[in-house]
Amino acid sequence: MIGSYIPASWRREAQAPETPLFDRCRAELRRGCLTLAALAELRREQHGYALRQSLKRHGLDVEPGTLYPLLRRLESRGLLMSDRRDHGRRKKRFYRLSTEGFRMLDQLRAEWARIDRALKEVTDVPYDGAA
Amino acid sequence: MIGSYIPASWRREAQAPETPLFDRCRAELRRGCLTLAALAELRREQHGYALRQSLKRHGLDVEPGTLYPLLRRLESRGLLMSDRRDHGRRKKRFYRLSTEGFRMLDQLRAEWARIDRALKEVTDVPYDGAA
Repeated sequence: MIGSYIPASWRREAQAPETPLFDRCRAELRRGCLTLAALAELRREQHGYALRQSLKRHGLDVEPGTLYPLLRRLESRGLLMSDRRDHGRRKKRFYRLSTEGFRMLDQLRAEWARIDRALKEVTDVPYDGAA
Repeated sequence: MIGSYIPASWRREAQAPETPLFDRCRAELRRGCLTLAALAELRREQHGYALRQSLKRHGLDVEPGTLYPLLRRLESRGLLMSDRRDHGRRKKRFYRLSTEGFRMLDQLRAEWARIDRALKEVTDVPYDGAA
């Protein structure tokens, strides 16, 4: 398997050669924010699909293939708790923030505010055309 | 080489088992913003080290091992142009935005504004304690 010896970042590019550059940059920009948004949403217990819908309403569309692994990762790190139980005719896994998750949410919100301030400073400098 | 068959994301975790969770989440949050910040800074031509210092002044510390590969990647994608020339007693590579880079910067700024609005909406909802 020659592919196994190619760095993962190259493989990703090779798999999606047709993805426009802006879409890739946007995805990168959104990826980091998703953890924060998911933690904030899960202060209120929700199952995965409901969470996807909530995020979508706020303009943060997330693929199931991105969201579900993220939820499992956050749970394995102790930021979320989950509980599988009946929901209508099916069983669904409900997620909610742990105490540790609440703390992380506060820290990430503060960090987000710092980054936001920094980005505003950097991008709001008017371009004077000087080389 | 067994390592080659382990997904890259696992390898990263295995390499940094001691990194506190918050630091990892923060790094993820910052990573996506870095492209935007670098593009904004490079409306004005700078060499890599000067760019690192500028970003640092705005509170965006970046490791050389993160910034330099990013600059090469952005150049290979046509968003930056570079020029290697004398700077004091040494040669340095100077980077600046291409026309395509200016367009990408505008698009990413707009996208950032959308994400920022969405995150504010999601995180500003007061937590009412209901499960």
